[in-house]
Amino acid sequence: MTYGSARMKEPNVPNRKTLLTLPTPCLVLDRAKLRRNIARMKAACARTGVKLRPHLKTAKSIEVARLFDGPDSPGIAVSTLLEAEYFASNGIRDIQYAVGITPDKLDRVAAIQREGARVTLITDDLGTAQAICRHATEANAVFHVQIEIDCGERRSGVEPDSPLVLEIARTLAGDENVVFDGVMTHAGHSYGCRSLKEIEAVAEAERLAVVTAAERIRATGIPCPTVSVGSSPTALHARHLEGVTETRAGVFMFGDVFQAQILTCDLEDLAVSVLTEVTGHRADLRHMTVDAGALAMSKDRSTENVSNDVGFGLAADIDGSVYSPQLTIARVYQEHGLIPVALPHALDDFTIGSRLRIYPNHVCMTASMYPRYFVVDSEESDGIEVVEEWKRISGW
Amino acid sequence: MTYGSARMKEPNVPNRKTLLTLPTPCLVLDRAKLRRNIARMKAACARTGVKLRPHLKTAKSIEVARLFDGPDSPGIAVSTLLEAEYFASNGIRDIQYAVGITPDKLDRVAAIQREGARVTLITDDLGTAQAICRHATEANAVFHVQIEIDCGERRSGVEPDSPLVLEIARTLAGDENVVFDGVMTHAGHSYGCRSLKEIEAVAEAERLAVVTAAERIRATGIPCPTVSVGSSPTALHARHLEGVTETRAGVFMFGDVFQAQILTCDLEDLAVSVLTEVTGHRADLRHMTVDAGALAMSKDRSTENVSNDVGFGLAADIDGSVYSPQLTIARVYQEHGLIPVALPHALDDFTIGSRLRIYPNHVCMTASMYPRYFVVDSEESDGIEVVEEWKRISGW
Repeated sequence: MTYGSARMKEPNVPNRKTLLTLPTPCLVLDRAKLRRNIARMKAACARTGVKLRPHLKTAKSIEVARLFDGPDSPGIAVSTLLEAEYFASNGIRDIQYAVGITPDKLDRVAAIQREGARVTLITDDLGTAQAICRHATEANAVFHVQIEIDCGERRSGVEPDSPLVLEIARTLAGDENVVFDGVMTHAGHSYGCRSLKEIEAVAEAERLAVVTAAERIRATGIPCPTVSVGSSPTALHARHLEGVTETRAGVFMFGDVFQAQILTCDLEDLAVSVLTEVTGHRADLRHMTVDAGALAMSKDRSTENVSNDVGFGLAADIDGSVYSPQLTIARVYQEHGLIPVALPHALDDFTIGSRLRIYPNHVCMTASMYPRYFVVDSEESDGIEVVEEWKRISGW
Repeated sequence: MTYGSARMKEPNVPNRKTLLTLPTPCLVLDRAKLRRNIARMKAACARTGVKLRPHLKTAKSIEVARLFDGPDSPGIAVSTLLEAEYFASNGIRDIQYAVGITPDKLDRVAAIQREGARVTLITDDLGTAQAICRHATEANAVFHVQIEIDCGERRSGVEPDSPLVLEIARTLAGDENVVFDGVMTHAGHSYGCRSLKEIEAVAEAERLAVVTAAERIRATGIPCPTVSVGSSPTALHARHLEGVTETRAGVFMFGDVFQAQILTCDLEDLAVSVLTEVTGHRADLRHMTVDAGALAMSKDRSTENVSNDVGFGLAADIDGSVYSPQLTIARVYQEHGLIPVALPHALDDFTIGSRLRIYPNHVCMTASMYPRYFVVDSEESDGIEVVEEWKRISGW
């Protein structure tokens, strides 16, 4: 059994930056895989006939957002107001803030809109809907608002058959400074599915929840233009999305080991990895340490409950190929990751300083610690040359 | 049963920033508690007669580092080279990089040292020791190096009775560009202790490991000036530290819910919390949502295996007082935290927009997502006015 010698850092060469010269740990994005993942999702949306509203909470990068430009992707979704501010300042005009708004965040929303973007809000609360109306009048602002529907995730949202759906719709639609824009839901519980059949069932429940709510609203005479669903598994695998106008999804762009196991992608599609180097050997304990620990990987353990638990990440060589037999980060400390090996002599293939790439459990969590992507391209270059650097934001 | 009405955001007032006006989520640091925690650790070190080398991997802030100024704290420890660069550029001259060095990081170390700071390195590997010697000669640099000893954590380090201890010491001490500085160890396994008696036993094993290694080295005629131990539980509770010269500890400054349960501190000592606001109610599901989710809190679950599992964080009111009955963040999504309540009417006390503070499981992980501390002082002011803002760094 041998892994083949892992490659070491190389001396810096002017005008050439590669995965063998970057300081570790850092975040690597394979542009070719990113483009393929986006193309696959666009094809799925073309099949179901809905527009794609990419959720940028995972990527948090304007360069990634621009890969979606086109008439079939009219806008984006975000999860923080900082993201809304960032993307608005980079020219994106149609932004859905897909987390329940609170009244005290409305001033910040109004400020973003004064610069020219529209920020569509969501709420599941009648008092908040009333506060939005009051605030719109006081601030001389126009707010576009959707009602959040619960399609079975049981986190937030209104049940689709609740009287509250109509009360909120009436409140919003009855105010001249508010545009009632429709209904939205998020099938986050699709992450609990383990087969295509289960995903299809959740996708249908997701569709039915918002379509039901929309039809009830329309039956009262109130227009309900937007009917929005979203989660990467359901967006890819829904059998049909009749009555739905758009779908939001984010993690599919990058993929991660968890998503690969719940059928959103294959391991070969994972676009984001953490570049790390071997920092120590403990042959007596049959493990090596790497400089990708809890901060570099996050403490997400999404794969704990799927068939292949990869600990805190799945190791690959510098070219991104997963090792066989599999190597994983089994334990993390703040700055140490610990990779067990079956036999001590396997450590001979991983000299101290040799470089690995680690695919994360949950890329949204892992990427959050990094201020930039070092972009490689496994189709247009050798796959280890840094062809671009894309900033990413974090925080609120 | 009532919690008392939680307080809401207040309008901004010029020149007055408080926990009722800040955008959420954000990171709050109580300076009074921080100072008390530092005083307690200094008293413990005075009792055991060792110098305190604060580990700044938790705080990552020069303002916090400056609270340790004095002859009993001659320098600091860090966990990344970015921290070393940051603290060196802020005037700290004695820095231990307390993670095993790799040869390709030596250029960066040398660059920091050229600006005037000393960066003491650690290694547990003979090949790395030889590479340090070669690099010192080639780069015309002087490197100060300690040997990392394993005192039972079983992560990295050399066993104290291994022949390797002497081989590495001879290699380092025999090179004219290298200063062999001594031995160090980290009793990370003290986090597994659940009683003072267990902590005292681990502290004694930690002491014995480095003192044994140091005595073996000295018996060969090589001086071994520094004998360094460190972990917050053992630093506080060691019965004696005979033969030890200094102790490193970090998390004690802030404390967290996990540390409170393993006897490093009390809940009343927790200096860092996340300010959040209520974003939604689901009375039917008996929970509310807050805007402190997985990114705001981290996915650390340290309290999973202690007596009081607080999920992803323990809720307190705006003044920092923990609620009774206890409220915890039981589930997290990227930007949502979910706080269950026993009875739906408890939600009446937490209007949407009302503010809570959440004490984290593991403050090192939670703090890592924030670029600054909003500093309050529960002794010198009303405890909710922001008296200072301290930058903190993140990344590598």
